[in-house]
Amino acid sequence: MANKTLINGVATDEISILDRGLQYGDGLFETIAVENGSLLCWDEHLIRLEQGCKRLNISFPEKTLLKEEASSLINAIDHGVIKIIITRGQGGRGYALPEKTNSNRIISLYPWPEHPKQNYSNGINVRVCDYRYAKNASLAGIKHLNRLEQILARSEWTDDSIAEGIVLDQEDNVIEGTMSNIFCVSNNHLSTPELTECGVDGIIRNTIINLASELNIKLEIKKLSLEALKIADEVFICNSIIGVWPVKNIDEKSFSVGEKTQHIKKALQERDCISSC
Amino acid sequence: MANKTLINGVATDEISILDRGLQYGDGLFETIAVENGSLLCWDEHLIRLEQGCKRLNISFPEKTLLKEEASSLINAIDHGVIKIIITRGQGGRGYALPEKTNSNRIISLYPWPEHPKQNYSNGINVRVCDYRYAKNASLAGIKHLNRLEQILARSEWTDDSIAEGIVLDQEDNVIEGTMSNIFCVSNNHLSTPELTECGVDGIIRNTIINLASELNIKLEIKKLSLEALKIADEVFICNSIIGVWPVKNIDEKSFSVGEKTQHIKKALQERDCISSC
Repeated sequence: MANKTLINGVATDEISILDRGLQYGDGLFETIAVENGSLLCWDEHLIRLEQGCKRLNISFPEKTLLKEEASSLINAIDHGVIKIIITRGQGGRGYALPEKTNSNRIISLYPWPEHPKQNYSNGINVRVCDYRYAKNASLAGIKHLNRLEQILARSEWTDDSIAEGIVLDQEDNVIEGTMSNIFCVSNNHLSTPELTECGVDGIIRNTIINLASELNIKLEIKKLSLEALKIADEVFICNSIIGVWPVKNIDEKSFSVGEKTQHIKKALQERDCISSC
Repeated sequence: MANKTLINGVATDEISILDRGLQYGDGLFETIAVENGSLLCWDEHLIRLEQGCKRLNISFPEKTLLKEEASSLINAIDHGVIKIIITRGQGGRGYALPEKTNSNRIISLYPWPEHPKQNYSNGINVRVCDYRYAKNASLAGIKHLNRLEQILARSEWTDDSIAEGIVLDQEDNVIEGTMSNIFCVSNNHLSTPELTECGVDGIIRNTIINLASELNIKLEIKKLSLEALKIADEVFICNSIIGVWPVKNIDEKSFSVGEKTQHIKKALQERDCISSC
């Protein structure tokens, strides 16, 4: 449950049912880690949000307003999650864009999720989902509010010992986890799936891509098969809240927590991109 | 704008931002024509809504409650639109289904949309959208709240003289209009696209399919190319609110308002499936 919410700067957690976010999933969101009163990767989240608004032709709010409002919610808390939702705003019935579009901004503070400590240290069990992502280049990359695909994939298991599900596309390419991006290390090279047709262009994924050359790690963004993933030396998943979790099992296949994974995680933490968890 | 809304039976038009309908588009909807105090095709809408809830594993509300609440909104009005939204209800952050799911039901009365009279009599101009629907059998057919694809397709034009856009899939099969289903008549045979991979299984489309044999019209549900559509003798679109609109132009190609289109429209009106407009 959210601790506190501001809608367009006003403390309320209720919104009109005419908002196109509810009517059609017509909007975008960001989920941002808060540590020691700081919003981690704030600029990167805002850039993606602005790009998403541009692609959907949704008016982007004043950045200073977003920062002020998010900051007013977090105060000086140690750990938390800020979620920003931008919707196209209110409209009548019908898919046509309203002539005048005043987007709505919904900023909520959530408690920090308490995941098992061994997820961070020893790694997680992962399954391969049956659900396959649809190819949709127009919506690929952005963090929009149409998330039934992720819900269908995530609904395939309830076993708490499985922390994430890997989702492939309809051509059996590995795309990402239901809530995370995925990387693997093979022969000291880092690989992550290309996301031109589906998937979310994750902030931490992007940061790792930019960081790789600085860390002298060769990186490839490419089509990745499940077979290639399963014979990798190391596999890890990442997102803005969990940071980096090593993968210790994909179905029956086991992995050790590798040196590269730890190296990358440390580098992200040193740069205040992810929590120190 | 909605005239009046009931959320779970209570007169309010505001909902918690924690509702998964807003957070993820995690829900379904129905749009129902009201004529002379009657909800047209009520049973058919409820059957589709229930099927949608089953497919998304959303708890389906009591049918009698839905009927009571919708009826209380329409009173004895001549013309209007009832929209029912069912969401999975409130949840925390994350795609996983909440353990206990109390769906929310949002029932709103909207004014009857005043479309130009010639849309009904002389037919409409239609364009072919550039946007292509993604193939997604898991979500095909049901009227879920993830509607960014329709919004992208509908955002391609603002010219009021174009009443609808035809959307193809990524393999160039004709699927439907942005807000309607499509039929064509060739050599006295009726055809409509199969919707196994994308599209909405429209109530009027389904009624026409069931009605065809009664009217002694041969009907095929099949893959339909744009070329086949353009050389048809008659083309029409349909949905629960507009009923049947003949198509008079697809881009540069012209059609006459045909006998079969008029026959089907009359049969639907005689059976109180569509408005008498």
